[in-house]
Amino acid sequence: MIEDSETTRRAALAALLAVGAVAEATARGESPPAAHDHDAMMAMLAPAKGPEDIAFLLYPGCTALDFVGPHNMLRGLMGATVRLVAKTREPIVTDTGLTVLPDTTFAECPEQLTLICVPGGSTGTLAAIRDDATLDFLASRGAKAGWVTGVCTGTILLGAAGLLHGYRATSHWVTRDMLGAVGAIPVAERVVFDRNRVTGGGVTAGIDFGLRMVAALRDDFYAKAVQLTAEYDPQPPFDAGSPAKAPIEATRLITEMFAGFTAELREAAGAAAMARR
Amino acid sequence: MIEDSETTRRAALAALLAVGAVAEATARGESPPAAHDHDAMMAMLAPAKGPEDIAFLLYPGCTALDFVGPHNMLRGLMGATVRLVAKTREPIVTDTGLTVLPDTTFAECPEQLTLICVPGGSTGTLAAIRDDATLDFLASRGAKAGWVTGVCTGTILLGAAGLLHGYRATSHWVTRDMLGAVGAIPVAERVVFDRNRVTGGGVTAGIDFGLRMVAALRDDFYAKAVQLTAEYDPQPPFDAGSPAKAPIEATRLITEMFAGFTAELREAAGAAAMARR
Repeated sequence: MIEDSETTRRAALAALLAVGAVAEATARGESPPAAHDHDAMMAMLAPAKGPEDIAFLLYPGCTALDFVGPHNMLRGLMGATVRLVAKTREPIVTDTGLTVLPDTTFAECPEQLTLICVPGGSTGTLAAIRDDATLDFLASRGAKAGWVTGVCTGTILLGAAGLLHGYRATSHWVTRDMLGAVGAIPVAERVVFDRNRVTGGGVTAGIDFGLRMVAALRDDFYAKAVQLTAEYDPQPPFDAGSPAKAPIEATRLITEMFAGFTAELREAAGAAAMARR
Repeated sequence: MIEDSETTRRAALAALLAVGAVAEATARGESPPAAHDHDAMMAMLAPAKGPEDIAFLLYPGCTALDFVGPHNMLRGLMGATVRLVAKTREPIVTDTGLTVLPDTTFAECPEQLTLICVPGGSTGTLAAIRDDATLDFLASRGAKAGWVTGVCTGTILLGAAGLLHGYRATSHWVTRDMLGAVGAIPVAERVVFDRNRVTGGGVTAGIDFGLRMVAALRDDFYAKAVQLTAEYDPQPPFDAGSPAKAPIEATRLITEMFAGFTAELREAAGAAAMARR
């Protein structure tokens, strides 16, 4: 059943990609190959950068929506391998209680990845920053990956592994200013590209991040088709998704509630990043 | 570590709820209890409808983001129980390959739920519609639940269980018009409320749905605080999230790619709904 679904998905995305490529060829004044000329079509469609090998880091207490949002978008990349990597294959309990199974261990993960993405969390992220095996894994794969990325407080973990030094980056609004502690330049934007570092804001920013990565890895048409498949035409019921828009009491309380956590996170991340400069 | 995170979350949301309630009491010209008067504060904060018992249905091939989006929002309800219910506790492979663990079986699930939510999928949803145990579970819990809800093609599964007869409802844009086959009235909106039936559009509509349910179960302030925590201030990179906005080639191809599936789904759902009228 899952196989059928996967086959359908791949066939559909091949078709989507074909239409995008044909449209582009036509726009360039070229004659695209006939639709029945399968080999010529596939050759034209071959992604310039080859099939992607993408890894999401999982760790106890990470935020499920931080990685499930971009995972949904990036799984639309026909031919790509998308891994859920953790220290072991033991079940991971995320911070909302949803339990997920990793499919690749640190040891099994290829050295060369097209993209690595680090989700955030709260105390789970702090624990990950204090775990040398996790930082060593991130540092080694991040040094070679085509794209080094993170979402939410995951960008602080990325910085703790020494991967954001001198880069413009963003994070969850609660933790954004501590990017300075890991040597990054905090930017108040939802998704920030700086060379091959790409970072997203809190939780739901992972969806915007994921679509932008699909466009970067393939093209805009492909990303639009993925967006349409996910019916991503957001209509938030309230305009309260950032501190500038939310009730001041809500912003103050969330800031205060995380005050102890952010102080610890800043110190741990700063010390780790310093040790890895 | 997870426990610490959960404790922090609950304490924070208690604080958030307190501020909202105090603000409301003040707006009504009442004197709110002093912040240090814990019992009086908690009494004022007690949700009118009692602590919620919320269940998400999981089944093989369901779409992870369909339930992880609203799960994230509804897990912000302090004091609520939020279950991931499936036929057995065996791992569930979702349609993007992410594997999750249910925490409650059909047999273990309480008869009386505050809210039940059904995520969508493609061939997995078709298989669920053909599975009497799943339809029986939905019909029995749906008959008693305070809120009967679904997202994406999950609303067709809800209809197949006989739960949308005569109700206005929505679905993923690809499957929306087949709501008529299960006796519902299709509505082209992202989230549709009709009495205690609440339905959402495709995949990412689950986030908007989830926030609206938080507001319905608690209040607007609470929902805004949950929205701010998830930094839900969407900035889609393209305006392509619905057929009216996406490239026509993308809409046509996705429609065509799902044509076989939708024909099968319509027939299976219609037959199931008819048998349960």
